Parts: sequence; C-alpha cells; structure tokens
Amino acid sequence: MKIVLIGAGNVAVHLGPELNRKGNKIVQIFSRSASSANSLAKKLKCRSTTDPKKIISDADFYIVALRDEAIASFLSKLSFTPQLIVHTSGSVGIEAFPNSMKNSGVLYPLQTFTKSIRHKPESFPICIEARNNKSLIAIRKISKSISPAVYEFNSQERTVIHLAAVFVNNFTNHLFTLAGKLLEKENISFDILRPLIMETALKVMDNLPENVQTGPARRGDATTILKHERLLKKFPDIKVIYRELSKSIENEYGKEL
Amino acid sequence: MKIVLIGAGNVAVHLGPELNRKGNKIVQIFSRSASSANSLAKKLKCRSTTDPKKIISDADFYIVALRDEAIASFLSKLSFTPQLIVHTSGSVGIEAFPNSMKNSGVLYPLQTFTKSIRHKPESFPICIEARNNKSLIAIRKISKSISPAVYEFNSQERTVIHLAAVFVNNFTNHLFTLAGKLLEKENISFDILRPLIMETALKVMDNLPENVQTGPARRGDATTILKHERLLKKFPDIKVIYRELSKSIENEYGKEL
Repeated sequence: MKIVLIGAGNVAVHLGPELNRKGNKIVQIFSRSASSANSLAKKLKCRSTTDPKKIISDADFYIVALRDEAIASFLSKLSFTPQLIVHTSGSVGIEAFPNSMKNSGVLYPLQTFTKSIRHKPESFPICIEARNNKSLIAIRKISKSISPAVYEFNSQERTVIHLAAVFVNNFTNHLFTLAGKLLEKENISFDILRPLIMETALKVMDNLPENVQTGPARRGDATTILKHERLLKKFPDIKVIYRELSKSIENEYGKEL
Repeated sequence: MKIVLIGAGNVAVHLGPELNRKGNKIVQIFSRSASSANSLAKKLKCRSTTDPKKIISDADFYIVALRDEAIASFLSKLSFTPQLIVHTSGSVGIEAFPNSMKNSGVLYPLQTFTKSIRHKPESFPICIEARNNKSLIAIRKISKSISPAVYEFNSQERTVIHLAAVFVNNFTNHLFTLAGKLLEKENISFDILRPLIMETALKVMDNLPENVQTGPARRGDATTILKHERLLKKFPDIKVIYRELSKSIENEYGKEL
C-alpha cells in the first residue's frame, strides 16, 4: 500500500515507521510545519510537503493524523477525492468527511503517544470504522498489519472510548504529577512511588478495578481522610480533587460498609 | 527472628509468608477474627489467638498490622513491654506507641495489598522509622530481608508519602473504575483499556509525569472538553471529577499554551 501521512505529530511519528516496517510504503508526509515534515520524511525516506495542493493524488491510502480541530479544515482544502482516507481521532465522528469522500473511515489507535518515547508495536488496540464495506475491509487489513487488536466501533462508541481513555491515561498521569508535587515539598523523590504505580496497573490486568479498590475512602476511614485534608491545606487545588475523588469512592462502596 | 504478627488482614497476609521465606519465623498470629487468625496461622504453620492476653511475651519482634483506628487501642491492651514492636501504617505517627515501649518504630510497606493477589516480593519500598538507633538497626535489617528498597522517613514525611500513595494507587484505581462504567453503558469491555493503562504506568517509569502529560486539557482543546462534558450529562458525579481534573491540568500547563 502506498500511503500518504497527513501530519507529523505524535500519532504520525509512531504510525509511520510501524506501517513501513510491516510492508507498507509511506510515500509522502504533509505537515504545515516544514521542520516536522522534513524530520519525519527523512526518517521514513520519503518526500514531504507543507502545501496541501502538492499532496500526491495517486496513493492508495491517506491517513489524516492531525489535531481534532484541524481535520475539517484540512479536508476542505484537499483538491482531489482520495482512493481511501481515514482520520485517527477518537472524538471526531466519521461525518467529518465530506459526502464526496465515499471511501473514508477512522483508524483510531487507543494509545498515548509521546514523540520521544518508542512503543512496543503490539501493545495497542485500534478502533476502526468505515463508510462502506470495501473501505472497512481495507482499513481492517492495514490495521491488522500493525496490531492484532483491531475492533470495529461506531463514532458514538469511539467517543466514549476516547473519554474513558482520558480517565485512565490523561487524568491518571495528572494524579501522578500531583502526587509528585506533594512529595517535592518534603524533598522526597518521585522514585519511591514508581513500584506502587506499576503494581496499581498490573493489578487491573487480570482484575476489574472495582474489585481491588483499597484506601481510606474505600474503608470509610474518616480519621485518615481528615488528616489528609489537613495536610492539603497548603494545596487548595489538590484538596478539591482529593475531596471529590474520596466522595466518589465513598458513594461507590458506601453501601457495603 | 521470632516474630508475632498482630493482625491477619491484607498486610499481614503478605508480609507473613515473605518474612518466613527469608529466614525469620512467625511464631504466633493474633487477630480478633478467629477465622482470619486460623487461616493465616495454618498457612504459616504457627499458633494463633484472638485474645490479646494470650499473646506470647518472649518473641523478638512484634508487627502490628492492624487498621489505623485499631492500633492505639490494641497497644493499650498489651500487658507486657515487647522486645521490639512496629506498626505498618503510613498515616499513624510513631507517637502512637506509649512511652514505655522504647524499642518501637514503623515498618510501612509502600504497596497495595489485596488478599487474593500474590505479589512479587522485591517490588515494594519499605519506609522505616524508630524511637532509637538500636531499634532502627533491627527494623532495617528485617526490612532488608524482604525488600532491597528500604528508606528512613520520619512520621511527617511518611504521612505525605501515604497521601501521595492514595493519589497514585487508590484514586488512580478509582479512575479506572469510572472509565469502566462509561464503557459499560455502551457494552464495551474494560479489556480495551488495559494496554493503555499499562502504557500509562510504563511511561512514568523513566519519565516524570509532568513531562509526558497529553490529552484535551493539556492541549487546551475546548471543543473536545465540551463534547466530553455533554457525554457526561447522564453521569453528574463523574462529570464533577472530569471538570476538576481538566481544570487542574489546564492550570498546570496553561501558561505554556
């Protein structure tokens, strides 16, 4: 498959090399940023452009890996009807494609990509959707080439998956940041938390999280909660989050206490 | 070392076998619950009692692995002065021990224990503290026998570590639960989130969380945040948490946008 990658951000930087490695061929990178486009093109040994009018029209597959806000405006600037085109967004619906692009769909990798960090290729699910069956088959084939875990979901389901991903990835990571801030105040290294973070993730690999919940709020231990709230006096923003999450846990399990 | 384990809950059930495996000898289990005491005693091939007056007085080391609220009242019932005694709580200070117990301290395993789940022994740090140097040396020695990561912290520092642990373990796990609830509504299995959860943890093993934060709030992507809040209309409790965490991320990184 001859593929054009639209975008040179976190998703493109990870999908591109992976697709090449699995027998596809990225033939061109488009990015508004010349430096990002060039850097990725160099890595993938292909051409690059910053001009949407210079995107080649005879590739087999176009992957729009842009920020959500940029997808619609990019599509409106495309001067030809691509053979097959997908975007990679969790929260943008399939209806983002104009009606003229019949062979279109979504290839949403459910993973957190950071440019500087290499990922194990097999480790993420891909959620796919397509306008028609022919497109679906092609999108599934290309997805299967880079991940064994390919699932078909409609746009509504995908939005909910994306929202759930915000909780388990973005919010979780932010809780790690807040915990680090608390330790920093006492000059304690973040290192001490790493084994616990890993164990917390490992525990839900073969358990449901509601079956392994522990902690003061789970036990209804008001003394410890009060002690923690006193410690958080100097961190009013963190205290609000402590309160809301403790309350939510108490509501969830309170009936059992 | 002849050890008496006070308690037969999550912590005792994990520390007990580990201590025995490393050449110590648990000689007695005390628990108010006869069934818990018997079950753990059977596993450790030792005696058990439910009567604090029948706790043997000639052991080398007493480990009070009780719930925070139960520690002080247990200590007041102990009819002799133990050779060396520790509790295992993150949030109870060393001053919980009466002055008569000079050889006392804390052995706080920074880990999430669930009775039904076996842990890799090397995987958790132990935070120790002691009333005097002789006790500290003994507590460090026994801790080192079950973990290479033994750190000395005072009670104030330990309370902050415990609070940070609540964020990275209890709260994180609850975010997983909330994410699962969102998926459940669409009949989507929790399975799909597991690779992302693992990746989220792996990412901070060699990065600081503030350096790998991603997501709509990090990008200042108001459109997606609004879309998510609309999706959460039917989950008002989860929506509050979504809002507070998004706001906290925006405050943290807003200056950079």
